[in-house]
Amino acid sequence: MQTTPLALPHVFHRAEQLFGHKTLTGVGVGGAVTTTTYADWAVRVRRTAAALDALGVAHDARVGTFCWNTPVHLELYFAVPCSGRVLHTLNIRLFAEQLVYIVNHADDDVIFVERALFGQLWPLADQMPHVRKFVVIDDGSDTPVPDDERIVDHATLLASVEPYAGRFVVDDENRAAAMCYTSGTTGNPKGVVYSHRSTVLHSVSVLIADVAGLVERDIVLPIVPMFHANAWGTPYAAVFAGAALVMPGPNMVPKAIAGMLRDHDITLTAGVPTIWMGVLPELSGPQDVPHLRLLLCGGSAVPKSLSEAWRKKIGLPITQAWGMTETSPIATTGTLRSIHDGLSDDDLADVRSTAGQPAPMVDLRLADPETGEIQPWDGVSSGELQASGPWIADSYYLNEDGGKQFTADGWLRTGDVAVIDRYGYVRLVDRTKDLVKSGGEWISSVDLENEIMAMPEVAEAAVIAIPDEKWSERPLACVVVRDGSQLTAEQVRDHLLTRVAKWQVPDDVEFIDEVPKTSTGKFSKKTLREKFVG
Amino acid sequence: MQTTPLALPHVFHRAEQLFGHKTLTGVGVGGAVTTTTYADWAVRVRRTAAALDALGVAHDARVGTFCWNTPVHLELYFAVPCSGRVLHTLNIRLFAEQLVYIVNHADDDVIFVERALFGQLWPLADQMPHVRKFVVIDDGSDTPVPDDERIVDHATLLASVEPYAGRFVVDDENRAAAMCYTSGTTGNPKGVVYSHRSTVLHSVSVLIADVAGLVERDIVLPIVPMFHANAWGTPYAAVFAGAALVMPGPNMVPKAIAGMLRDHDITLTAGVPTIWMGVLPELSGPQDVPHLRLLLCGGSAVPKSLSEAWRKKIGLPITQAWGMTETSPIATTGTLRSIHDGLSDDDLADVRSTAGQPAPMVDLRLADPETGEIQPWDGVSSGELQASGPWIADSYYLNEDGGKQFTADGWLRTGDVAVIDRYGYVRLVDRTKDLVKSGGEWISSVDLENEIMAMPEVAEAAVIAIPDEKWSERPLACVVVRDGSQLTAEQVRDHLLTRVAKWQVPDDVEFIDEVPKTSTGKFSKKTLREKFVG
Repeated sequence: MQTTPLALPHVFHRAEQLFGHKTLTGVGVGGAVTTTTYADWAVRVRRTAAALDALGVAHDARVGTFCWNTPVHLELYFAVPCSGRVLHTLNIRLFAEQLVYIVNHADDDVIFVERALFGQLWPLADQMPHVRKFVVIDDGSDTPVPDDERIVDHATLLASVEPYAGRFVVDDENRAAAMCYTSGTTGNPKGVVYSHRSTVLHSVSVLIADVAGLVERDIVLPIVPMFHANAWGTPYAAVFAGAALVMPGPNMVPKAIAGMLRDHDITLTAGVPTIWMGVLPELSGPQDVPHLRLLLCGGSAVPKSLSEAWRKKIGLPITQAWGMTETSPIATTGTLRSIHDGLSDDDLADVRSTAGQPAPMVDLRLADPETGEIQPWDGVSSGELQASGPWIADSYYLNEDGGKQFTADGWLRTGDVAVIDRYGYVRLVDRTKDLVKSGGEWISSVDLENEIMAMPEVAEAAVIAIPDEKWSERPLACVVVRDGSQLTAEQVRDHLLTRVAKWQVPDDVEFIDEVPKTSTGKFSKKTLREKFVG
Repeated sequence: MQTTPLALPHVFHRAEQLFGHKTLTGVGVGGAVTTTTYADWAVRVRRTAAALDALGVAHDARVGTFCWNTPVHLELYFAVPCSGRVLHTLNIRLFAEQLVYIVNHADDDVIFVERALFGQLWPLADQMPHVRKFVVIDDGSDTPVPDDERIVDHATLLASVEPYAGRFVVDDENRAAAMCYTSGTTGNPKGVVYSHRSTVLHSVSVLIADVAGLVERDIVLPIVPMFHANAWGTPYAAVFAGAALVMPGPNMVPKAIAGMLRDHDITLTAGVPTIWMGVLPELSGPQDVPHLRLLLCGGSAVPKSLSEAWRKKIGLPITQAWGMTETSPIATTGTLRSIHDGLSDDDLADVRSTAGQPAPMVDLRLADPETGEIQPWDGVSSGELQASGPWIADSYYLNEDGGKQFTADGWLRTGDVAVIDRYGYVRLVDRTKDLVKSGGEWISSVDLENEIMAMPEVAEAAVIAIPDEKWSERPLACVVVRDGSQLTAEQVRDHLLTRVAKWQVPDDVEFIDEVPKTSTGKFSKKTLREKFVG
């Protein structure tokens, strides 16, 4: 058989040749809508590749992007890896010191930055001595841009070159295509390097009917940012399928997203639970989004109540997907199988509240967090979820963690604790480091948090382990009371006593003003531990 | 990223772990139906792997199969390659001398043969000196089986071993998994070797929503034989998806196939045009097959009238797929795209009469048969169809043709002449060797045949090139007149004069009793050329 590499040039040339008539829409600053075609986009990809040459970017250099989900970002998604370079998507929500760290760690040669975000990046430029050029993309905003030899105007740059005329060639499918740093709830951010092979295979999995079944007829709105694990692969998969794409730009408020779903006849969209929680009240009912067929949700656990609220109001429940930066990211999706036929609405909602079944080509297993012993898939036994497959990381960039996150036989330790039923449906129970081991028994911090957050007086709750002489560890509940409500530690404990085993109930409850968050909006239990454990 | 091989053990273990409850049905000799589960099938695959060890089959040996589409054949489809050996599917319709040739050429070590087919194979055994064992599978038939040390009873063999207990491992994804010989309309049959990688990727393509979108909910009936290019990949893809499978066994008469479609709620099936021509009259209407959603058809051009007859009577048109042994085989499928929305029934039927669009990961191009110059995709320019991709052959086994079928840059010359429209829809025009080059202009033999076969008096027609001093070549029409009809050469020529350019009309018409066929039922123009050209 031919040794044709699985590489992004094939995806690009396929779209250019078959789907030149399909549309690519961008919603810009202030909501301005521009629509172009894949044919025009392809020319701009070719122009961008030539521009990278003109800038003297080495053929294996890292090219940073500091952008929202925009058509220009999609140009970079292809021009950078198809010309052999490595796309480094920078998370615009990182704290300044982390941003400086990852740009320097990845040794980015140039950074493409949208003008509205330029004010956030430029003050850090002097701390990024290896970045030769900042290419500023006009997004209609008016952020002042100083006169500096490091600054290049994107439009001027593209106009100064002729589009690359040949076919892109990447001979080695294991060549790096892109990289993304994990947000790092502990230690420094760590880089995950995606290969052409992993990117193509992950995109293919999104096209598989039982995974997401993305097709040419879809109109795709990626809400999850393109700086988070390739927006879950939706941009690459959409281009591979020839689907129409709508890029939301910086318009991340619920009202704007609801408007895009409605105005552009979106069929498939993807984002974190917070987004879909905010968007639902902005829609009046199924008639607003009659074409919507798949609402992918991941990044953190999707509350059953949220999925059910969508189902009841819009007629479309949320489909969970699970993964992480290290898994490209989609490892499981919660689409239903024939075994679920005939289940009651409530039982179906239970299935949908799992992370779903592993995608073809992905292998999962559960390992005891202490002994490493493999656990059965019986829906009861829990263990650390470990993953293997062609789009799962085998190391961090420059082996930053010394391999701690990987097993001796090369599987990724996801850090998630899960149970898996006999049909392969994964239910996440906790993060390994958030489990509380009390008197030899595991206590799930997530279970306790869910029970506490079910109290109407509670706005947020996080449970951490604190050292205990007798029990080794005990849970500590950190609770944020809703404005205008009153709550005592005793009330929290009494509530839990009716819901979990007595020995699982936290001895102490701390009332705090808010749960500290990471740059990606997740609970930072690390900060809580620093405060309450030291 | 992890270097996880794309190999069949993953597909097997996935099915074993996730889909053990799904069913595998076999329809045996005389129509007897047996249903088992994937869980039982998996144990038998493990038992078969152990049996190969017990037989002393080397870990990279070729294992022949001489079987219909049966559950046992599906066991061999996995046990052989998952244990590292190479599955060699023998075409039960080959002429004896070809069968002997390919068994010896592939150096088959053992052959698994169904008892009903044993009488066809055994008389050739002495001509296959390297075949150590013939494993006879009980299929309920009563073909006499002699007492010979080369003969092993399948059931006894399996009962004599313990199922292999570990995980199958194939580390090198480029390792050979299976092989199949092309039926060879010219010269000796040539072997195509499928790797694990090519087989997994081809199976994945069948799961892609825009290709065939095979899903877990499907109930798949593969009519195309498993000895023809892996039954178009349907068995591997169905197991990968966890779909239910119904294996038709030797029951290849239209009435039996119609019965299976009806009785087993089949959703997806695949076979050559002759099959669907025969089955249609056996169905009374859509109510017979309400679940049928995809009727894949390939192997030879699907007449527009046949697809339309299905659409009108059953409500489901035929979906063409195109490929060949050398392309695993699916390279294109004729599923529709958004550009076809709003077309009239007749225009849609025209689109469906093409071979469709290339599958993701497959690249096609048209090359001038003489100069090799690449032709545009304009729906008019024709050229030899050439293919590239990870499941397209790069050579024949033992380089049998000296590489003639492959271009200098490694693409497969398919031998088909085609035009491609701007959306990538491929219309096959002819076989390169059947084109007639007259006075410097190409004449399509297929076009002429279609026009002649549209005459009510004509049963079959084949057009070949004959040498001509003035024009280099001229077309010769070989026509079979329908029983009870009368036709003259002049009438054929007059009919054509109103339909094609005057210079394309054959000067001569030969009336023959029937068009000679190859072992796979295709027109053998080679035989006609031998007869009329010499």
